[in-house]
Amino acid sequence: MADRIDVAVLGATGSVGQRYVELLAKHPQFRLAELFGSERSAGQRYADVADWRISGAPPEEAVNKVVKHHEEPINSPIVFASLPGGIAREVETRLASEGKAVFSNARDNRMDPDVPLIIPEVNADHARAIDVQRKLRGWDRGCIVTNPNCSTIHLVLALKPIWDAYGIEQAMVTTMQATSGAGYPGVQSLDLIDNVVPYIGGEEEKIESESKKLLGGWMGDEFQYADLRMSAQCNRVPVRHGHLETVNLKLGRKATPEEVIETLRSFRGRPQELGLHSAPETPIIVRDQPDRPQPALDRDVAAGMASVVGRVRECSLFDIKFVVLGHNTIRGAAGASILNAEMMLADGYLRV
Amino acid sequence: MADRIDVAVLGATGSVGQRYVELLAKHPQFRLAELFGSERSAGQRYADVADWRISGAPPEEAVNKVVKHHEEPINSPIVFASLPGGIAREVETRLASEGKAVFSNARDNRMDPDVPLIIPEVNADHARAIDVQRKLRGWDRGCIVTNPNCSTIHLVLALKPIWDAYGIEQAMVTTMQATSGAGYPGVQSLDLIDNVVPYIGGEEEKIESESKKLLGGWMGDEFQYADLRMSAQCNRVPVRHGHLETVNLKLGRKATPEEVIETLRSFRGRPQELGLHSAPETPIIVRDQPDRPQPALDRDVAAGMASVVGRVRECSLFDIKFVVLGHNTIRGAAGASILNAEMMLADGYLRV
Amino acid sequence: MADRIDVAVLGATGSVGQRYVELLAKHPQFRLAELFGSERSAGQRYADVADWRISGAPPEEAVNKVVKHHEEPINSPIVFASLPGGIAREVETRLASEGKAVFSNARDNRMDPDVPLIIPEVNADHARAIDVQRKLRGWDRGCIVTNPNCSTIHLVLALKPIWDAYGIEQAMVTTMQATSGAGYPGVQSLDLIDNVVPYIGGEEEKIESESKKLLGGWMGDEFQYADLRMSAQCNRVPVRHGHLETVNLKLGRKATPEEVIETLRSFRGRPQELGLHSAPETPIIVRDQPDRPQPALDRDVAAGMASVVGRVRECSLFDIKFVVLGHNTIRGAAGASILNAEMMLADGYLRV
Amino acid sequence: MADRIDVAVLGATGSVGQRYVELLAKHPQFRLAELFGSERSAGQRYADVADWRISGAPPEEAVNKVVKHHEEPINSPIVFASLPGGIAREVETRLASEGKAVFSNARDNRMDPDVPLIIPEVNADHARAIDVQRKLRGWDRGCIVTNPNCSTIHLVLALKPIWDAYGIEQAMVTTMQATSGAGYPGVQSLDLIDNVVPYIGGEEEKIESESKKLLGGWMGDEFQYADLRMSAQCNRVPVRHGHLETVNLKLGRKATPEEVIETLRSFRGRPQELGLHSAPETPIIVRDQPDRPQPALDRDVAAGMASVVGRVRECSLFDIKFVVLGHNTIRGAAGASILNAEMMLADGYLRV
Repeated sequence: MADRIDVAVLGATGSVGQRYVELLAKHPQFRLAELFGSERSAGQRYADVADWRISGAPPEEAVNKVVKHHEEPINSPIVFASLPGGIAREVETRLASEGKAVFSNARDNRMDPDVPLIIPEVNADHARAIDVQRKLRGWDRGCIVTNPNCSTIHLVLALKPIWDAYGIEQAMVTTMQATSGAGYPGVQSLDLIDNVVPYIGGEEEKIESESKKLLGGWMGDEFQYADLRMSAQCNRVPVRHGHLETVNLKLGRKATPEEVIETLRSFRGRPQELGLHSAPETPIIVRDQPDRPQPALDRDVAAGMASVVGRVRECSLFDIKFVVLGHNTIRGAAGASILNAEMMLADGYLRV
Repeated sequence: MADRIDVAVLGATGSVGQRYVELLAKHPQFRLAELFGSERSAGQRYADVADWRISGAPPEEAVNKVVKHHEEPINSPIVFASLPGGIAREVETRLASEGKAVFSNARDNRMDPDVPLIIPEVNADHARAIDVQRKLRGWDRGCIVTNPNCSTIHLVLALKPIWDAYGIEQAMVTTMQATSGAGYPGVQSLDLIDNVVPYIGGEEEKIESESKKLLGGWMGDEFQYADLRMSAQCNRVPVRHGHLETVNLKLGRKATPEEVIETLRSFRGRPQELGLHSAPETPIIVRDQPDRPQPALDRDVAAGMASVVGRVRECSLFDIKFVVLGHNTIRGAAGASILNAEMMLADGYLRV
Repeated sequence: MADRIDVAVLGATGSVGQRYVELLAKHPQFRLAELFGSERSAGQRYADVADWRISGAPPEEAVNKVVKHHEEPINSPIVFASLPGGIAREVETRLASEGKAVFSNARDNRMDPDVPLIIPEVNADHARAIDVQRKLRGWDRGCIVTNPNCSTIHLVLALKPIWDAYGIEQAMVTTMQATSGAGYPGVQSLDLIDNVVPYIGGEEEKIESESKKLLGGWMGDEFQYADLRMSAQCNRVPVRHGHLETVNLKLGRKATPEEVIETLRSFRGRPQELGLHSAPETPIIVRDQPDRPQPALDRDVAAGMASVVGRVRECSLFDIKFVVLGHNTIRGAAGASILNAEMMLADGYLRV
Repeated sequence: MADRIDVAVLGATGSVGQRYVELLAKHPQFRLAELFGSERSAGQRYADVADWRISGAPPEEAVNKVVKHHEEPINSPIVFASLPGGIAREVETRLASEGKAVFSNARDNRMDPDVPLIIPEVNADHARAIDVQRKLRGWDRGCIVTNPNCSTIHLVLALKPIWDAYGIEQAMVTTMQATSGAGYPGVQSLDLIDNVVPYIGGEEEKIESESKKLLGGWMGDEFQYADLRMSAQCNRVPVRHGHLETVNLKLGRKATPEEVIETLRSFRGRPQELGLHSAPETPIIVRDQPDRPQPALDRDVAAGMASVVGRVRECSLFDIKFVVLGHNTIRGAAGASILNAEMMLADGYLRV
């Protein structure tokens, strides 16, 4: 693995940061070279400050690394960023202007008119917006590429093949989201033992807007938003990992549940074509059992990189209804970002 | 309390049966006279066989009562029945034919063309179907009155004032239901720790069909079903008590969230008019906080007899969306049945 | 209730503060007159800042009260204080020096040589230390009275009758504590879904030291600590309310489980003698079922003011083992403090 | 993997049976040849009847296997048995008499005077009892080897190096056990949401008796039980997998926590010596963080085959106290049994 590209992780001690570290530790193309954190952790051993919340202990590649402060210079050409919304925009823009390829999990830049928001199986072609971004902003090698919000990714991955095959006019969504999606510290245990919280600030808006960008097109100089009417209600449930969503769809043209299942199962995207390291063999797995997918049983299939769909059936109000589940910090965050980088690298967008 | 009417509870050791016992123990109009159970418990002290799963211990009115076998004769004129679906129809029919007023929580008879399915605030007038029932079946004093399924009750209680004020053309519902709704034994702990099960057998069909009967009318000789298009998706979540439901509504005529809130808050029904013992002061409580209602915090308000609504807001796809919560074994089962009995008694339908 | 004594609650918006508010709202002797909080909440309506985490909504007595800042003057002669450890000592001392009777739930002053640490059924006579406290500190009417840590209270309440009847040489304790004991915000949900945390900072030391003061004597001018050897291991479990503890005891003289059960059941203390408002009829309830007490089923018995013991049996290593459960924010905190005030008032220690 | 030995799994659809299937699917020495179940599942595809409760789906080696009935003949020379206590004795005895090497997870035969109860790192030499067993029972090639109860295994694995180095006079244990230990169906969700059940039938007795056999010796013709006084209290907590136990030890000779930690860390046993496939590199992992081990974070380390110890510190009553955690269905059941088989095979006890 001598020729691996050095990568840096920003926000490396946080919930998503830890997933980046886990997934990058043994990556065949990327070398986990630098870890960045806030003042609280800068200057200390990663293992001492990370408060590791993934099974076991941090990988040996990270244990003894000294965490750098976010304002210190970055040597790696590729940066995976998991910064809090609100401060991400400034930091990411500065890094890209300094020539870094920034793969960001933050919300700040996602909806910008020259920033690609990508799920590789859904809208690989949006990567071409990078050319416009570089030109507009006067960047030579740097760029900002974003991945969607955790609940949007699994929803849109399941919608894409249906969108292509039958069209979708209306989509109604209710989410039951895991607590790790709120980061750490996040939701108090007193709020999630024997309880559900029917509110996640800003989440419904993100789902509704990001979906339209993802299913829309890149017109050569601007994004065209998909003409999809959607409404989401978001809930936090007592689950560690794995967002579950109920979905009702009004299709452009009729399809039976069997047709939809076949459409979902046969779906492949650019990552499968390219055989990318983090790509699941099939991006969508469909369960036949009437009571699946379930977070505890299905979030880890395909190493957390697939969306698992079940209960595809007729809807007595719209046309089709089903549930979709996916791991929120793997395919829903860090893994999404890494897969974006793998694809951009393979497709020649990165000048590293 | 000398003049209280004797009542019997069928299925008294079960999950809903225990709620009947709790709620009837100090009831001012009904006297908890007889407890019936299966072979396993017949002939034994209630406290020894009930495996009490409500806080504390069974009320002293029940502790020492010897449980009778379901086939033994019943002396009480009023019977509260919580029998398993499938065997309820036969038992309840026999008892009614013997002159008992049967208030049933089972699904078997709910959709029968001469059996009233009642939420007192919603369709008190359906009680008049009793006359037809008695006539058709040749019963003099006996009758069968049913209450809806636990998730339907709180949904339709919240829909009723909106239905009356604005009309409802389409309703999309996703439920997050508590485990006590599955009875005891019910859902395994391995299925509900760190997990959600996106399936409850038969539940979606019950919600969709019962709602139409409840919001429909009694035409003097038959029920007219409401012209309401509805689709439900049902999930079991790690919560002890309290069903939470997300609801999206397409109204007959437009209304602002503020108007809907005012409509819900000012709603009163026949139980409030009559000042019934188990009636909540206001059947629908609307929370203003953005993250309420929550099962752990709101299921017990108004002694578990109200529905608690929150997050009433515009729907980007339909017109209005909100969440509704209610206690599933109190207002959603035993309490519903008792309130039915109180109203039928007050309105002169019972010949006891 | 015209002659009720005005009381103030310090830290009124916190987890224990909310319990004070709930329990004092309808109290026959105390009038909930003033609520104090930090800068964040001072000057605002209680209902707007309390983030109420008890069922339903704040009592109407508190809803519209404007929260005062902790440094504002207090008018009420009695103060119930739930301040964070570390800052409590200074504030409570100042208030007592100004003539207030301070009933404190904080750890700061508990082990002071002139501060009574009281469980009314256990060591009512420690109240006499108040005379020395006032003399030593030059206070005329003011005083500081403390109650123990939440896990200590239920343990020692169960130990007391055994201590008196048989003596206790050694006590081994393992606790399984509810999350509300950590306050709000407290333990993260990611740490308590599908998990147990085998550590609660400082808790084991508190149990071991406070127990010796509680079971010891007041010698007229100083406390004598009980000669009890004890070791505790403390764990946080996914439970909302109710601390459960396993206890193994080496007795001073042998006793059968039946004798111990009888000793526990017949135990009464000063609150029962005086018939205090918040006193449970019997301070210790013993369950006969082999699998009780359980937090969800037994924490609320006797309005959360009793300790519930079960599984009293022979210990193959020591003499006797059992489990004890109690509500941690009622009898384990706010209720403990209020019961102390009721007793001190009845016994003439308060100059109000 | 051409030379692998055929193995059969009895009780293959159950909770522990599924773990056997998972762990044996890719085993380098054993070939998962036959699956046996009850009447309910016999004759059907494993995937259709297993109700898989481990992440994902059954391994492909098992999916299409037709489950045989327990009374059908077994072809494989090695049998892994996970039968219910009570019926295991008869079946296992019959199979051994027919020449099978039976590795049993059931309680029935564990305490028999000629049946080895083995944890390979603890009492590998007990395997020699097989010779006596075969002689006594007139078996040529068959034998019965058992592994301990799930909570006993992790306890005794942690006790063994301390026992050897310092001696243990007294041991006090409180367990907090995961729900998967109760099998499926097992504990109801209504009993484990927001709750702890302080009772597991027969568990305390198993821990106390099995520990003495495990730490005792094989005298050539009989087992000598260890002179260890022990008392256990067992609780069921809302955790999917991973038993956590608090342990207090009175040692034979004094040792500091640092010495004990070093003793635990340097411990190796026969499986490590032999380099067995399922052997963890170090059987005991000691955590330095004050709040570890935790079930959610530590149960899966070393593929669930190690015991994880933490909080080793002085005990104010005995000498040393600590907590130990381990995966209950891997090292605590199926993995234990497979490791026994690997060692017996390597050490030449199996005539297969």
